[in-house]
Amino acid sequence: MYEYPEPIENLIENLRKLPSVGRKSAQRMALHIVNMPKESISEMISSLENVKEQIHKCSICGNLTENSICNICLDKTRDNQVICIVEDVTNLLTIENSNSFNGKYHVLNGLIDPSSFSPTDDIGVDSLLDRIDKENIREIIFAISPTLEGETTMLFIKELLNGRNIKMTRIASGIPVGGNLEYFDEITLRKALEDRRDII
Amino acid sequence: MYEYPEPIENLIENLRKLPSVGRKSAQRMALHIVNMPKESISEMISSLENVKEQIHKCSICGNLTENSICNICLDKTRDNQVICIVEDVTNLLTIENSNSFNGKYHVLNGLIDPSSFSPTDDIGVDSLLDRIDKENIREIIFAISPTLEGETTMLFIKELLNGRNIKMTRIASGIPVGGNLEYFDEITLRKALEDRRDII
Repeated sequence: MYEYPEPIENLIENLRKLPSVGRKSAQRMALHIVNMPKESISEMISSLENVKEQIHKCSICGNLTENSICNICLDKTRDNQVICIVEDVTNLLTIENSNSFNGKYHVLNGLIDPSSFSPTDDIGVDSLLDRIDKENIREIIFAISPTLEGETTMLFIKELLNGRNIKMTRIASGIPVGGNLEYFDEITLRKALEDRRDII
Repeated sequence: MYEYPEPIENLIENLRKLPSVGRKSAQRMALHIVNMPKESISEMISSLENVKEQIHKCSICGNLTENSICNICLDKTRDNQVICIVEDVTNLLTIENSNSFNGKYHVLNGLIDPSSFSPTDDIGVDSLLDRIDKENIREIIFAISPTLEGETTMLFIKELLNGRNIKMTRIASGIPVGGNLEYFDEITLRKALEDRRDII
């Protein structure tokens, strides 16, 4: 089997570590990189180096930041009695960009997979409990996908928080705005009916 | 608009330069990279650096190599009177791995796009003409995709070589092995009929 020179094969292997990149795409990417001007490759390298050196998790909420505490946690204008729990930073960003939330966040280290979860896994709940003990939290909003893993995670955290005097809510399930009813399953439809709202 | 910290945005922009990577995929890749162990990021960086520093085009045929001349050009057991012209290194590799060719190659710098081609663009033909003048070439095989760009490129090179005493051939067009006739267009079918072969 004739192969690319070793540095290219090596780059291909590294690119395959990226999500949804198979051998063929990695190959196409590697050859594209080989043909890029050297300055563009250098830029790519330094962007990787900067992320590696400068990006940390916020020590309070787990958001990604260049500092030890993220801008959202530092923001004194935000309601710090409400914590919105999200599964990752992408979801945090989506909520921020919807301009519909002005509290603080807590970013989990992923969700609980019921088939492989061990009670010693830390999905980021310990730091959440710490926050709740120290800060004066009024409400916890679960903004977690209503999947098997999401539901399990919500249930798990809810159990841990039971007995504390905190309001717990979850984002509504229902038909997405612009969605056509016929394309959604019965469970979604049932939730949407149960959670129906008065027309005002 | 709330954005990721600048190093992450920067990495996203760099990843978007890769072929068929849009904003969403670049974002997913960048967050995946942020969550990788630092050693894996370092490995990725050095694989990029090695490609940048160590990979050159073979000074004879344009193949990618760590040396100044590639292994295929150096190989004395190969027929150096036959040159197979390919559009890129991926196609060279595919032909090599088919074990059906034992001559030398010439890798073009891409194909001619008839809508934007300027006669000063070098698609790698100058070095081909040099080789033909210096070496004793018997046959040129065009292993170029039968697309508009491919056909234009073949025609262009053929014109340049006219008058020289060199046999010029092109790989056969036809129905791929295992392909079902009904899925191929009339032009492919006509070519396949024209190029029909005796059953032996």
